[in-house]
Amino acid sequence: MRSTPLYSHVALVREHSPLVHCLANSVTTNFTANALLALGAAPAMVTAPEEAEEFTPLASALSVNLGTLDLPQMDTIRRAVAAANACNVPWVLDPVAVGVVSLRTGFAKQLLRERPAVIRGNASEIICLAGGVPSARGVDSTELSAAAFPAARELANATQCVVVVSGATDYVTDGARTVALSNGSPLMPRVSGTGCVLSAVVAAFLGASGKPSAFFDATVAAVAFMSVAGELAALTAKAPGSFAVAFLDSIATLDEAAFDATLRMETLDAHVVVAGRPA
Amino acid sequence: MRSTPLYSHVALVREHSPLVHCLANSVTTNFTANALLALGAAPAMVTAPEEAEEFTPLASALSVNLGTLDLPQMDTIRRAVAAANACNVPWVLDPVAVGVVSLRTGFAKQLLRERPAVIRGNASEIICLAGGVPSARGVDSTELSAAAFPAARELANATQCVVVVSGATDYVTDGARTVALSNGSPLMPRVSGTGCVLSAVVAAFLGASGKPSAFFDATVAAVAFMSVAGELAALTAKAPGSFAVAFLDSIATLDEAAFDATLRMETLDAHVVVAGRPA
Amino acid sequence: MRSTPLYSHVALVREHSPLVHCLANSVTTNFTANALLALGAAPAMVTAPEEAEEFTPLASALSVNLGTLDLPQMDTIRRAVAAANACNVPWVLDPVAVGVVSLRTGFAKQLLRERPAVIRGNASEIICLAGGVPSARGVDSTELSAAAFPAARELANATQCVVVVSGATDYVTDGARTVALSNGSPLMPRVSGTGCVLSAVVAAFLGASGKPSAFFDATVAAVAFMSVAGELAALTAKAPGSFAVAFLDSIATLDEAAFDATLRMETLDAHVVVAGRPA
Repeated sequence: MRSTPLYSHVALVREHSPLVHCLANSVTTNFTANALLALGAAPAMVTAPEEAEEFTPLASALSVNLGTLDLPQMDTIRRAVAAANACNVPWVLDPVAVGVVSLRTGFAKQLLRERPAVIRGNASEIICLAGGVPSARGVDSTELSAAAFPAARELANATQCVVVVSGATDYVTDGARTVALSNGSPLMPRVSGTGCVLSAVVAAFLGASGKPSAFFDATVAAVAFMSVAGELAALTAKAPGSFAVAFLDSIATLDEAAFDATLRMETLDAHVVVAGRPA
Repeated sequence: MRSTPLYSHVALVREHSPLVHCLANSVTTNFTANALLALGAAPAMVTAPEEAEEFTPLASALSVNLGTLDLPQMDTIRRAVAAANACNVPWVLDPVAVGVVSLRTGFAKQLLRERPAVIRGNASEIICLAGGVPSARGVDSTELSAAAFPAARELANATQCVVVVSGATDYVTDGARTVALSNGSPLMPRVSGTGCVLSAVVAAFLGASGKPSAFFDATVAAVAFMSVAGELAALTAKAPGSFAVAFLDSIATLDEAAFDATLRMETLDAHVVVAGRPA
Repeated sequence: MRSTPLYSHVALVREHSPLVHCLANSVTTNFTANALLALGAAPAMVTAPEEAEEFTPLASALSVNLGTLDLPQMDTIRRAVAAANACNVPWVLDPVAVGVVSLRTGFAKQLLRERPAVIRGNASEIICLAGGVPSARGVDSTELSAAAFPAARELANATQCVVVVSGATDYVTDGARTVALSNGSPLMPRVSGTGCVLSAVVAAFLGASGKPSAFFDATVAAVAFMSVAGELAALTAKAPGSFAVAFLDSIATLDEAAFDATLRMETLDAHVVVAGRPA
């Protein structure tokens, strides 16, 4: 039996076990590695600037996270992104806390010119990257994801990439197409790194897909998979410690039937999107 | 119904969700972030020296941990502490393994002059900071907390801050007032970072309190809350892996009734304290 | 009742609680610290180059992991290894992803001349260090452990140290003696850092043993203990998130009776070894 269109991207990841080069932050790197392994992908956190140009081309995708950015990591990121672009390795930008501190805000805006395949952030981060006024709480999103939707579409059009806004409702847009997903659990933001993990998982889905024409669908599949996995984990785990454990188990075991039965996704009309009130 | 005096500090943290800037160590940064999120606070591990001056003033409190100190982090700590002091952001010093290696011992003693609001360490670390002879086991405490009590009081008086000595019995003193707490579990030192986490949680309680006049009570509340949470976690989890998970769950779910019913705390008389045998 | 010969090494670790200086990677440092604590050892992740020479001699053993190698860590490793050798502190080399990127490959080969007591890696890494052709998947092993056995024996003879090849079957050899162990669980490679953890645990066993003449047996005991602990954890935990938790619990609670009843170990004949088909 063939997989449903969205779940087929999950099957591709499990079949090909894409190698994902993660330039992660020091807070969530272990959780990211474990989530990728649970998914069936192969994480590699090679960090030295001197190793980036040699290693990134070996990977199926690159994930760049600015959570604990410093000058040495900026050097590594620049080299890894250049190598990725030279070798057609798709890369994902997670602009953690952009808008809060000027070093990372300026750096993230430089990176926008380096053709990320996907940008994934919370509402504040996406609004900032699109040129809006940033919030002041760092990794917290003080904005609702719906309020960031117009900025996400603008950013997608300006950079020609797929943009994901995470929140109670997640939005995925390439400027033309838009999907809203409303799975997940309030426990997800109570665990450090669920956003970082999603960015790396999106990279894994891009790497397994391989084709730029499939990147929008692969990104939707990644966001859908992780929010469904989180929602199902919250059925058994009621507090953040045990939820983090159950989330990894759910990523490893979520099958097509449970995925399809749980997914809540809608495609948004263009005129609704323009009004900025997508739901 | 109003909260009891000690638990009211917990309620403040959950209500205000203080942003805590953590200059953490690389071993326990994820556990620290997850504990703060479980508590209801907002962790931010901004690490670059270039970002410290801009970010620390946005936080409600700063937590400084010397566990994996290196020269770049010393630069970040100096800048973050100066910014904290300039903006009245209270900060907590966790002098991990001070007394064992000279770089961090010297640096910690410099930091004592930068007016930390609270110093939290194990017996060996507090004895060392007060000018005593250090032990040689690093992050292990080879001294009983009671033996460190005179040093803690001396250190509190010399630095005008609150000092916490962690151990089977925890002591909190500002030089004049002293409280001894005897909750917790032998599993707590079997999990890496329970001390580091407590220091960051103390910072969260200071940040939620806001008033220097309440810092002693806020610190007592933080120590009490975490040791009660650990003790209750140990009722269901009997080995360190599952205990770490249950501890996070307990931090997230511990309520006033269970807290009050479990707390074992006594205020010590000054003359007993002077004798150095507080129990 | 005296312990059986192999389990007596476990008892030594629990009795002496050896201090293990871990120069770890940023992905698995927390898991490594928690595994050492669960075992009954004392981890210390002192990372600054300036602290290495002073700290390493205080430790019972040193564990060197190249997973997230960069130039500052290379400086720390050089100093720590020199201090270890000067003070007869045994050290373990975990050559993560050697053969994939030239910086770490060259550095690992330099380190071979610094007399590690044990080298532990997967098949690809051991083949590379012995001068063979490396694989291209980084921390994944693309080779079966049995295929790496001749390289392991060669490497052990050339460096006069004990070599461990991890895989579904684990091999431990000092060039003359060889043991094959077939415990473990397919969930172990689904959790990030089970290999890194094993290397640090080997260091703990060396540190508790103290005698170079016992290093081969101590290494066999460490590999046996961890693979039995993993196998027993997989009896109750069926997915990688809960398995990681159960693995730590199992390390803390595994006793002699369960160890002896579960262990599957055989000593290999020299002529079989020469043929490169040890099983």
